[in-house]
Amino acid sequence: MSAPSASPVVRMPFSELQGLLQRIFVRHGCAEQVASVLAHNCTSAQRDGAHSHGIFRMPGYVSTLASGWVNGQAQPQVSDVAPAFVRVDAGGGFAQPALAAARALLVEKARTAGIAVLAIHNSHHFAALWPDVEPFAEEGLVALSVVNSMTCVVPHGARKPLFGTNPIAFAAPCEGSDPIVFDMATSAMAHGDVQIAARQGQQLPLGVGVDAAGEPTTDPKAILEGGALLPFGGHKGSALSMMVELLAAALTGGHFSWEFDWAKHPGAKTPWTGQLIIVIDPSKAEGGRFALRSRELVGQMQAVGLSRLPGERRFRERAQAAREGVALTEQELQGLRALLA
Amino acid sequence: MSAPSASPVVRMPFSELQGLLQRIFVRHGCAEQVASVLAHNCTSAQRDGAHSHGIFRMPGYVSTLASGWVNGQAQPQVSDVAPAFVRVDAGGGFAQPALAAARALLVEKARTAGIAVLAIHNSHHFAALWPDVEPFAEEGLVALSVVNSMTCVVPHGARKPLFGTNPIAFAAPCEGSDPIVFDMATSAMAHGDVQIAARQGQQLPLGVGVDAAGEPTTDPKAILEGGALLPFGGHKGSALSMMVELLAAALTGGHFSWEFDWAKHPGAKTPWTGQLIIVIDPSKAEGGRFALRSRELVGQMQAVGLSRLPGERRFRERAQAAREGVALTEQELQGLRALLA
Repeated sequence: MSAPSASPVVRMPFSELQGLLQRIFVRHGCAEQVASVLAHNCTSAQRDGAHSHGIFRMPGYVSTLASGWVNGQAQPQVSDVAPAFVRVDAGGGFAQPALAAARALLVEKARTAGIAVLAIHNSHHFAALWPDVEPFAEEGLVALSVVNSMTCVVPHGARKPLFGTNPIAFAAPCEGSDPIVFDMATSAMAHGDVQIAARQGQQLPLGVGVDAAGEPTTDPKAILEGGALLPFGGHKGSALSMMVELLAAALTGGHFSWEFDWAKHPGAKTPWTGQLIIVIDPSKAEGGRFALRSRELVGQMQAVGLSRLPGERRFRERAQAAREGVALTEQELQGLRALLA
Repeated sequence: MSAPSASPVVRMPFSELQGLLQRIFVRHGCAEQVASVLAHNCTSAQRDGAHSHGIFRMPGYVSTLASGWVNGQAQPQVSDVAPAFVRVDAGGGFAQPALAAARALLVEKARTAGIAVLAIHNSHHFAALWPDVEPFAEEGLVALSVVNSMTCVVPHGARKPLFGTNPIAFAAPCEGSDPIVFDMATSAMAHGDVQIAARQGQQLPLGVGVDAAGEPTTDPKAILEGGALLPFGGHKGSALSMMVELLAAALTGGHFSWEFDWAKHPGAKTPWTGQLIIVIDPSKAEGGRFALRSRELVGQMQAVGLSRLPGERRFRERAQAAREGVALTEQELQGLRALLA
């Protein structure tokens, strides 16, 4: 979801915006390496027009760091558990530096064993999930990741919220073009998009969420203030959200979406949970032509009239940003400068 | 979906019904081992009340075998490709005997490496998917499987069908109770359930499918005769269906759902595609308490008011069948005897 605004749009080179965000992260207690990884992630989301995970997130990052809820200096501890299984204890820090610390080992294992899994726990994930999987596809690998978040989704058929928005992201190489990438909340809408709608006074479609009384509502504020989201696609999306809890929390040793209590950390915003990443080496597949087959799939999807492939809008925005710089509003830029002061 | 009928219900011991189905498979050209695996699968579905994949499927199996489209005598060829990657060429036979042939190697690799993948190609899958994953959970493993099928689903935003019903099945152990298992078509409804609705003259909800003109319809016959299904959950279900094509076909070396042509085999019913199964050993997870954590998840789901967990109805039907025998109608039993004649 984009974030239209009356404020004039300015454009900055990627590296300049990343540098600005990095200084903000360092200013608020992150180690240089942590700040670098988070700034790259956040700038990438902004560049791709994924505004609910771009600059929009920065006040939340700062607030959660200030609260002492997350450790911006954490040193991830990587454990080589088995030929295709890597664990990382993120040390109460962010998930992205934990992935960065284990990434080379994960790729080596996937290429040797054909498939490998990375289980991150004791981690905070506050970002889009596609930046975690897309780089694997750029290296010719297939990647699937899930992360659980914080209780805000009512399981299908239940009365109260339990699951997080629990996204699933997938990336696969595609011959001669950008990889095929998607990143979907298993809730009917991502939490950040509900926040953006609330800020802009927009109404939501029915089926996205319920109010504090558990009644269907179209008011994003009613969802955020005591209400809850619904899973996408009824009982099927709900089952997938349950699967994400099992894979991202039970299988990593992380918290379920309802298990952490940040009451003693006012300003805390980030879910303290876990993340699972599965990486497959398609060169092991029969025929070894995965990226070509992927290309054929895309061709057929276009032939039946699909005007926009998953991830395509982001790649288009990215191309524009490469030519003209990353777009942000004057108001957002002022907000960033204030965070640096 | 159950299949109510005016015909009286009879109940048979599991082994007796399995034996009857096995003789039918052999009678129509299957090797003993193939017949045994398929009969067990089909009887299990009938036992669990999964009627669209139970006895209901038998005429389709017989018809497809008679057409020469599938090889009931195929010998699966297992290739040990890498420490965590197994391939099987099903030889134009059914997927289940291919899984059976590779299963021990797959489990051994998963327990050694922490995760392993089985890629089956040149295979026909005409059954429910949960019987493929549930046994892994009974051994303490986590399993995920996808299989693509045949063009009958219009990708979200497209004009014509391309994807198959492309189910996703998942199974995980749960301490002190049946495993957590789900099996969902990524279409709004499973194909077999549409066929059952058509046979019974029932209307479907809007959103399940379109007619031959691409217009929304509630008539199952209009969906089956020139129309098509829609993905569940809009663009998200559609993206998952696309992922299933990539994993079950591109990554296995199998056909996409639109690539096979059975025109020269009148009576052919089974999709000639591929199947992927990922198995994870949760004893490698931090803390090693996966099944207990799974139990905690189930407890919380019940606490927020979930009256039926994924897979629960099947386990309840199964318990009844264990006491009283597997239910089928007198009409179905006569149909089976006719297939044996």
